[in-house]
This record gives sequence, C-alpha cells and structure tokens, in this order.
Amino acid sequence: MLPGVGVFGTGSTSRVLVPLLQAEGFEVHALWGRSEEEACCLAKELSIPFHTSRSDDVLLHQDVDLVCIYIPPSMTRQIAVKALGKNVVCEKAATAVDSFKMVTAARYYPQLLSIVGNTLRFLPAFVAMRQLLVEGYVGEVQVCDVRVYGPSLLDQSYGWTCEELMGGGGLHTVGSAIIDLLSHLTGARAHRVHGLLRTFVQQNGSIRGIRRVTSDDFCFFQMLMGGSGSGTGSGGVCCTVTLNFNMPGSFVHEVMIVGSTGRLVARGTELYGQRNGCNGEELLLGDSGWVGPEVRDMPLPHLRGLSSMVTALRQSFQAHEERRSWAHGPVAMAPTFEDGLYVQTVVEAVKRSSCSGEWECVEIMTQEPDPNHNLCEALQRNKN
Amino acid sequence: MLPGVGVFGTGSTSRVLVPLLQAEGFEVHALWGRSEEEACCLAKELSIPFHTSRSDDVLLHQDVDLVCIYIPPSMTRQIAVKALGKNVVCEKAATAVDSFKMVTAARYYPQLLSIVGNTLRFLPAFVAMRQLLVEGYVGEVQVCDVRVYGPSLLDQSYGWTCEELMGGGGLHTVGSAIIDLLSHLTGARAHRVHGLLRTFVQQNGSIRGIRRVTSDDFCFFQMLMGGSGSGTGSGGVCCTVTLNFNMPGSFVHEVMIVGSTGRLVARGTELYGQRNGCNGEELLLGDSGWVGPEVRDMPLPHLRGLSSMVTALRQSFQAHEERRSWAHGPVAMAPTFEDGLYVQTVVEAVKRSSCSGEWECVEIMTQEPDPNHNLCEALQRNKN
Repeated sequence: MLPGVGVFGTGSTSRVLVPLLQAEGFEVHALWGRSEEEACCLAKELSIPFHTSRSDDVLLHQDVDLVCIYIPPSMTRQIAVKALGKNVVCEKAATAVDSFKMVTAARYYPQLLSIVGNTLRFLPAFVAMRQLLVEGYVGEVQVCDVRVYGPSLLDQSYGWTCEELMGGGGLHTVGSAIIDLLSHLTGARAHRVHGLLRTFVQQNGSIRGIRRVTSDDFCFFQMLMGGSGSGTGSGGVCCTVTLNFNMPGSFVHEVMIVGSTGRLVARGTELYGQRNGCNGEELLLGDSGWVGPEVRDMPLPHLRGLSSMVTALRQSFQAHEERRSWAHGPVAMAPTFEDGLYVQTVVEAVKRSSCSGEWECVEIMTQEPDPNHNLCEALQRNKN
Repeated sequence: MLPGVGVFGTGSTSRVLVPLLQAEGFEVHALWGRSEEEACCLAKELSIPFHTSRSDDVLLHQDVDLVCIYIPPSMTRQIAVKALGKNVVCEKAATAVDSFKMVTAARYYPQLLSIVGNTLRFLPAFVAMRQLLVEGYVGEVQVCDVRVYGPSLLDQSYGWTCEELMGGGGLHTVGSAIIDLLSHLTGARAHRVHGLLRTFVQQNGSIRGIRRVTSDDFCFFQMLMGGSGSGTGSGGVCCTVTLNFNMPGSFVHEVMIVGSTGRLVARGTELYGQRNGCNGEELLLGDSGWVGPEVRDMPLPHLRGLSSMVTALRQSFQAHEERRSWAHGPVAMAPTFEDGLYVQTVVEAVKRSSCSGEWECVEIMTQEPDPNHNLCEALQRNKN
C-alpha cells in the first residue's frame, strides 16, 4: 500500500516531484514552504490539500508516512533529523557535519527508509552502464572522465545559490551528484582528491553593489579511487570531472568510463559503447523521448532520474500491505545517508584542495567534531 | 626562389612531409636516415636523389638551404644545432636543456629561419580561432578545455616511444603541441601547472619480458595562465588538458575556449562557435575534405597543419629572389625555438607535478645548468 506523502520545499524540484508522485499513485497530503505564501501558492497549483510553513505540521500529519525534503542545503539537516521516524527521501546537506548528524539519526531507525535523493543512479543509462561494467564490457576500469557544461546555476535573486557556505555552487550542486554516481558505477571510493574552484562571474544584473557571488561557477577536480592508495602514481581508477556553468544556451552532460578493453559513454540520457577492436561506437540505450513535465531549470538526466526514482519508490512500497513498510529491492541502488556523508566529505576535500593547492585525503568522519574545538579554530583563524 | 631541402628522418612525418614539399615546388635533394638501409628505401620511394646515414652529408650538401628535422626527440638537439647556418624547421627536443642549447645556437643566426614544426598553429581552424579571439568573439577568456583521445602512441616494436626519458608518451608527443597552441591562442603563458601521468598499459603483444613502457598513455594537466599569478584562486585563464591514448578505434581532438560572452570549439579540423544568448552553435569553418596523402599514424589536424605550414614556407621563400632569404610575414605565426623552450619547460613542470603531487612553477631556463651540478644530483639520487 502506498504511503501518504509530505513534501518540503517549493523550488523547481518539488514542482516536478509532486506531479511525478501523483502520477505513480502516491497521495501528497501536505506541502511545507519557507513562507505561508509560497506554500499556499504551490499547494493550490499542485492540488495539495494542506500547506504550512511550520515543519511540525507536516511531520505530525497523520496521513504522512513518507517525507520528501527538497529544500536549500543549509536547512536540510534540521528537517531531515526531525523527520526520521517516518520514511525519508532528502537532498544533500550543506556540510559533512550535517551529513554525519543525519547518519547518526538514521541509525536509530534501521527499519525506516532513509535515502538521499541523488537521482542520477536511477537514470536508465546509468543503470545499464553499471550492469555492463559488472559484466566486464570495458575490462579493468582505468579512467572516468566527466563533464557537465551549462548555464549559470544562480537564482534570479540573491540567495543560497550564490553562497559557497550555504551549499551553493557547481561542485556542491552538480559535482556531488557526479561524485556519488562515480562511486556507484565503479564500486570504489575516492581516497585522494585534487581540485580547483573558480568564480568567474562574481556579479551580474541582479547581484551587484556590495553583494558578490562566492559559490563556484567553474570547478575541476580529480579523484583517485581504489587501487593501492599509496600515491598518485599507480593502480586504481583516475577520475577527472570538469564542471562549467558559464555556458548559457548549452547543456552537456557526459560521463565516460575507459577501461582496458573498451569504453562506455553516457551522453545526456543515452548510452554508447565501444569495445577495443571494433570500428565506431554502438548505441546501447537510446532515449525514447521524455513525456513527463518540462522543467526549465532541471537538466533532463536529473529529471528522468527523478522520475525513475519515484517509480522505484512506488514499487518498493507496493510490495507491502502495511503503508509504512517497504521492500528493499527496488530502492537497493539508492544512496544511503552514509553515501551522502561520503559525498559531502569528498566535496569538502576538493574545496580544501582548491585552497591548499595540494592533494587532499578523503577521511570519513567517525565522530562528531567537538563544537568547542571548532570555536577555538575559528578564533585562531580570526587572529591570523 | 625556393631553397633546396634536406630532410632528416624516415618516420611517418617525413613520409608525408616530402610529398607536401614537392607539391609546393620545393626540391628535396637529400634524405638522412639512422641506417643506410632505411634512408635508401625511403629515398627511392619518394624520388629523392641522395640519401645517407651521415648527418654532415646532408648539412654540407651544396643544394640544401633548408633543413627539416623530424627524428626521435633525443637526437633532435644534436642535429638541429649542427644544422643552424642553414634555415631549420625541426621537431621538439627531448628536454628543456636540449631546447635551451638550440635557443642559444639559433641566436647566432638571427637572419636564418629557425622554427619548431608544431603544425597545429597553422591549421586553418586555429588560425580562424585566434583571429576571432582577438576580435573578442568570446569576450574575456576564462577556461580552455582540451581533450585528445586516440589509440596507443607506441611503435610496433620497442623504441623511444616507450621511454619517458627519450621523449615518448602522450604528454611529450601530443601535449607539447597543445601547450604551444594554447599559449599561441590566448597570448599568455602558463605560470603554474598541475598534472597527473599514468602508464596504464605497461606491456603489450610486442613489448614484454623484462621490457616495460615508461611513457604515459594517460595524462591530465592544468595550467594557470596570465592573471595576477598570485595563486590558484583568482584571475587569468585556467586550462585543463586530458590526453588518453587507451582508446583504439577512436580519435577525438577538441579544443574549447570559454569566455565571458561566448565560446569557440575546434573539433578535429572544424571550428564552431556560440555567443551567449544565441541558441545553438554555428559552424564557423568547415572542412572541405582532405585531398593530400593519407597517413595512418598522423591525426588529420596535424596532417592538415603540416600541409598549411609547408604552404607558408613556400610563400615565405617565394617572396625573395635569393634562395636563402625569406620573408617573415607568412611564417610569423610559427613557433620559435624560444617557444620550444617554453613548451619543454611546461612539459617538465607537469612531470614534476605528477611526482610531487603539487602545483609546480614554470620557470624558463636562462642559463645552462652546470653539468657537474647535475652529476652531483644524480649521485645524490643514487645514494638514496
């Protein structure tokens, strides 16, 4: 039986998520927005019976058993931790500390669903790619080469998308989905990273005066995954990721995996492959055309991935009679909160590398940092 | 009046260069090969009246006023320095020290032509790209993004292409042409670089037993060019270059320059552009089809560039009556030996970075290193 859904967020993702949920047969009972007005407006548009700006009103709503959280990263942890006790699908948090708190909270509810809504894993092209990698299509994986080019990620008006510390920028917004995807595809995790972030456009028509964009619009990073882990020189997989959001009017989303006997390339939502010795690429998975809602701000791979994830959620809950239970199978490939912590740790290591200019180790937090220690560090920094 | 030509080398470049020279009206009088046999064989094939394996026989040949040197990098410096006194077109040397010696030697003959045969600068797509950059098509240049993918660069049998120290590998062979091209296009030079080199395929069907490939088949590097030069964080142009030669059956040669108001992309020999605000790319320069000789080992951009360079050489020499004089105009865009030294310096900085894992500064040699000092260092290294 499908659970009733409560949705947090009134942004472009919520706007497309709700119709997708409804199309799969979920009833969306409640919508939360940061202001009463935003919530009211979108609830009316999407025919959601209840709206509010107080999070408890959704979390305590008796018909809500699945909570979907698609809000600015800096608010995610607070809502997600409170929401646990119900099944939760949520977007990435703003920091590794936030992610760690979410992991800790989720451990209290092992029987509940708690997944990060990184939807690229669910995109059919990547599902097929992973399967082919497992079957040995490319042989031993050597290099992953990813590029995402597109128009600016900034909102029309000044907000969290402009602020690096609020979780804005290409690395945090798009790079994190790629980091997650690559670990999912290769079955390995980054142990060292090197990166470079830039903000080429610091002001524009709507962000000016004393305000400046601090989030990156160009980001390049490398990840060394698996292998001996003993250095930059040997073994393992080398990933290079280029993100450039200074290219209005274009959208490139290309994930290439090169191995010892062939390669696979996902371009947009299509998958191509070439085995060594063969002449030319073969189309392995075409795109039959998108029939769902159109969303200006959301690239097609994310949109289709989101759609596939909602379908998987439906299958997962349908398998059981009781409306809070779910089957693991259909959502087994979804990223867990632990995966979310890993991704956030890599993001922060790349940012550190961009400052230090050096390769940085990826060390997953195992204990919450002492807040007093952080305070000391902050004071120390201010002194310098 | 066109000068008589002597050619050094019997490899794939010489094999295509000689017919190109002949087609432009140059007479090729002499051919040098490492063995009498190789020289004899190719001379016959290309109708060259004289062949030899002794360099002086070409350099002292009375009809030879232009010497073209396309031989393994480790031998280039020795021949090039001896050849000066005539006009010289030659391939890159193996090391920065070699390049420095060539620069020093060339300074004695300022009236003679001495250029590095990096032919990408002459490719019509890049000539047009440079012109459009100067005219402001992309606005302020932010990012250069280059990728070259193709099959293995190794020769059939064991030789210099397998040896990093002999000038083999993707970085040295292909990367150096890209480094030169990017400085030519942007009018700036790299001041800091970061790189990662890998040899994924260390042995193959013909290189086995105790022999191992030491030259890179995957190379990624970043260059920070122009700008304040004060760090990795601000100003200037950021270049990322990905070279992967583990992709048999494919050839990708893409140079993209992204600026504040648009972008230009050369794919193979064609040039595309898109200004911000326009919908879709425009084809700026197509490829009318290649009618010259086919060469298996030489990618089309290099082949067409070589052809354009030979045409420029013809125009340069035709402008004067005396067969040793030449006009600067047609070959003004050719890389000088100084440019060759810059390129070699960047190549070595990238290699250093791959070992150290750190950003390395690009410092052009101004004095020949003391050989005794080098000896001391080598001894020191052996001790460790």
